[in-house]
Amino acid sequence: MNKLTADSITALVLERFAGCPDPRLRQVMHALIAHLHNFAREVELTPEEWKAGIDFLTAVGHITDDKRQEFILLSDTLGLSALVDILANRAAAGAATESSLLGPFYREGAPEMAAGADIGGATSGERIVLHGRVASADGKPIPGALLDVWQAAPSGLYDLQDPALNGMNLRGRFRTDAAGKFNFLSVKPASYPVPMDGPVGAMLNAAGRHPFRPAHIHFIVAAPGHRRLVTALYIAGDKYLDSDAVFGSRDSLVVGYRRGAGDLDAVEFNFALDRDGR
Amino acid sequence: MNKLTADSITALVLERFAGCPDPRLRQVMHALIAHLHNFAREVELTPEEWKAGIDFLTAVGHITDDKRQEFILLSDTLGLSALVDILANRAAAGAATESSLLGPFYREGAPEMAAGADIGGATSGERIVLHGRVASADGKPIPGALLDVWQAAPSGLYDLQDPALNGMNLRGRFRTDAAGKFNFLSVKPASYPVPMDGPVGAMLNAAGRHPFRPAHIHFIVAAPGHRRLVTALYIAGDKYLDSDAVFGSRDSLVVGYRRGAGDLDAVEFNFALDRDGR
Repeated sequence: MNKLTADSITALVLERFAGCPDPRLRQVMHALIAHLHNFAREVELTPEEWKAGIDFLTAVGHITDDKRQEFILLSDTLGLSALVDILANRAAAGAATESSLLGPFYREGAPEMAAGADIGGATSGERIVLHGRVASADGKPIPGALLDVWQAAPSGLYDLQDPALNGMNLRGRFRTDAAGKFNFLSVKPASYPVPMDGPVGAMLNAAGRHPFRPAHIHFIVAAPGHRRLVTALYIAGDKYLDSDAVFGSRDSLVVGYRRGAGDLDAVEFNFALDRDGR
Repeated sequence: MNKLTADSITALVLERFAGCPDPRLRQVMHALIAHLHNFAREVELTPEEWKAGIDFLTAVGHITDDKRQEFILLSDTLGLSALVDILANRAAAGAATESSLLGPFYREGAPEMAAGADIGGATSGERIVLHGRVASADGKPIPGALLDVWQAAPSGLYDLQDPALNGMNLRGRFRTDAAGKFNFLSVKPASYPVPMDGPVGAMLNAAGRHPFRPAHIHFIVAAPGHRRLVTALYIAGDKYLDSDAVFGSRDSLVVGYRRGAGDLDAVEFNFALDRDGR
């Protein structure tokens, strides 16, 4: 009569997925179970800690609704979202612009605006110019590329989070000109904390971690024949640049303000897109 | 300018927990993150699969309420609950009765009954006798040990799951006599499926796994000076004995029916409790 042990149980559970008809699901479940069991064995997880984990996940589930996704926030704060993003984009050409997190605040259908337009609308805050070029990773400019831009207000809130705002704010879409160039106006973004009133906030507090993201502006850049680029630009000098709570900031995506035309601070960035199927 | 890679990101995330004031929380979070990242790297988890995982956990959270704990069911079906149980009890003496899962259906405060009583109440089903002895792992009988017993009806439902039942049913507490002996009546338990109408059921279906637990009767056995034993007896011959959906069945806990007194089938089992602080 063989006693099931803390080691032998893993093979028993894995065997139970041997008949899984989808080979990829079987592979993912096998790896998930092996790593989950290794984790529990390595720390000798106690029944009380296991229960605390169940209660934590339950609280994450119960605060999640159509407007708030605490599981994504959990994945973000554990660096899993950034890791998945890096894995998905690591095949890109070395010269291609690095990707960064999409985040939870993207909205489809932002208005397409003319070059030079201000996405800030009635938002108060210091205006800046954003300009640059979109090219292939091999350097060839791309006319007609579409930039989808969004950012938080200087208050740290996105339009979706601000009950005073009903419509699209600080969002816009722009097309590059014949030389692949774009330019538009916005307001200076500020660093802001991720939501701290839920279980993930409690986890960050217990771990002694701050909740801030450095100031940034999101971009999706798309052009026919090229891989869609989801990224963001991060503002030089922000105190949270090296400790982004969700691990989105990248050295290659840091931009500084320079005094530009019309006495406004300006940010220049040239996007390089990977060719499709390269 | 160093590019963050799929390998280097893990150290960055771990470092962020370096200031965690609770050393055990730091240890658990470090191990959790390392294994979570290793999992994602090993299977090269795609953004679409990551999103499916987020949606799955969200559904698990939303079906969980005061009466249903789908996260525990998930832990059970992945063998994590059984692993934590084994880890917590592996220090027990070799002669001590093996532990098994508490499960989600235990209720405090079952009525204390006299030896020979029937915990089945008005439940229809074939009666059985359960009898045996409680002793220390070194063989010394324990008078006055408390056995807390509960089981599902032949329908496969626990009282908590059956809207027709308001009170305690198929639950009772018994004390051993001066010789450490106990005996009571119940009904023959049957195998039953775990709940299949939620996301965990969908996972079992996708994996080609059946949802059944083999027929069993739960026991908590407690006596002063001894480690509290949470276990269950499994009925010999049940077709799901070797494939318990939640990995609770143990060879050493399988019992067969024997024709006993009064023409009833009887189950005999002698419990052996580990001494406290051994």
